[in-house]
Amino acid sequence: MPVDSSALIEEDDGRVTALPLARGQGVAAWRQIADEIEADIAAGRLAPGAQLPTEAKLAARFAVNRHTVRRAIAVLAAKGLLRATQGRGTFVEAKPLAYPIGRRTRFTEIVTREGHEAGGELISAVETAADEHVASILRIAVGAPVLETEMRRFVDGTPVSFGTSFFPLPRFAGMAAALRDTGSITRALAACGVPDYMRAETRISARLATVEDAARLDLSPGRILLVVDGVNVDAAGVPIQATRAFFAADRVELRVAG
Amino acid sequence: MPVDSSALIEEDDGRVTALPLARGQGVAAWRQIADEIEADIAAGRLAPGAQLPTEAKLAARFAVNRHTVRRAIAVLAAKGLLRATQGRGTFVEAKPLAYPIGRRTRFTEIVTREGHEAGGELISAVETAADEHVASILRIAVGAPVLETEMRRFVDGTPVSFGTSFFPLPRFAGMAAALRDTGSITRALAACGVPDYMRAETRISARLATVEDAARLDLSPGRILLVVDGVNVDAAGVPIQATRAFFAADRVELRVAG
Repeated sequence: MPVDSSALIEEDDGRVTALPLARGQGVAAWRQIADEIEADIAAGRLAPGAQLPTEAKLAARFAVNRHTVRRAIAVLAAKGLLRATQGRGTFVEAKPLAYPIGRRTRFTEIVTREGHEAGGELISAVETAADEHVASILRIAVGAPVLETEMRRFVDGTPVSFGTSFFPLPRFAGMAAALRDTGSITRALAACGVPDYMRAETRISARLATVEDAARLDLSPGRILLVVDGVNVDAAGVPIQATRAFFAADRVELRVAG
Repeated sequence: MPVDSSALIEEDDGRVTALPLARGQGVAAWRQIADEIEADIAAGRLAPGAQLPTEAKLAARFAVNRHTVRRAIAVLAAKGLLRATQGRGTFVEAKPLAYPIGRRTRFTEIVTREGHEAGGELISAVETAADEHVASILRIAVGAPVLETEMRRFVDGTPVSFGTSFFPLPRFAGMAAALRDTGSITRALAACGVPDYMRAETRISARLATVEDAARLDLSPGRILLVVDGVNVDAAGVPIQATRAFFAADRVELRVAG
């Protein structure tokens, strides 16, 4: 039987067949392993979202040490092909989620409608004083009290964005608890007496992920973040939320209807 | 009179006062020069759009050779603060242009309304056969003839985007000549009998600029490009243009109305 050149072959009993690398050909072992894995992804042998074999198994497969495997994985993560998490393993990046931006932009609704599981984690919530920028967006006085929240959002357990929002106080005094309970801005606003809201304007720019950004999103530093600034208003047109979210550009594609 | 610490001081008679750098402090000369220029930009002494003194003048100002100045400029270009052009000099990046994406997305109209001068350059126009992707967008048969155009677009002489469009043939047989004459897709479509058109959908993603992209946009490789895919339809809803444009993220901010 010919040796399969995939990085992934594992016998039914869990044994791994060693796949020797080409030695002395001037191509480093980590580069050959990265090329094998990239070819597996391109050919669909490693599907979007699939988990990679453990470092130990890949090391056995290629008869190299774990450092060599780790370097190959880091290179592919830096290209946006793999997502290496702390403790949960390494995954092939899923296809980007189609994320409509418009008058009704609701994370949980969008993700659920696409057949995925939406998640939201409240990182922090503090009362603070509105600076000039926030005050002008929310049309309140500079120095007026606002609730500043930080959230991280997930699709099928993968972090796709993090962001900061400002809500005017005392109107949204219950917002922090509601966000913690529901993980959803839409549900938390409803709990605070806002059954419906609209996106007044969205601004889209981009920047490179810093080391801190990258850690929050299981991303390689230097990958692209789409920066999405939005203002939400209630049914009467009163601004209720100023928000800035950073989306991993590898994981979402923004869509605007005509 | 105290020595001004700006990178920019030039006497009225054109003489340049040397500004000595700190030697032996462990900070390279190019880094000190880059920091001076960055501080000048931050403080507004170098305004958005302003032209930097020539390399020769900066070299005299800091009593260093031109290579040192060039390295400082390259570092600031890689940070997106300066734009170094071939032959025309080095400029402080202007503020990003607010670029609305929506049902009526017209480059020339948007740029002119913001008080800037719009420019368009037709790079190439060839007749080709629609592949599956283009055919499905334009709702024509795979292999049907289409005009493929490449354009570069300018705001006040600065390149802000380049892109590829596909127009169905024979309907838009006159499009290449009209684009060359007008530099405007809206005017060229009007010349081809389409007085009005609408954007059906826009998709927004991002990637890093390659060396080739960067050369087209007077950008440093590794800066971010916003990738904007759009479909335009005529008044009857018939698709007339499939387009993909790459915008320098340092030069535009996309806006979506609610």
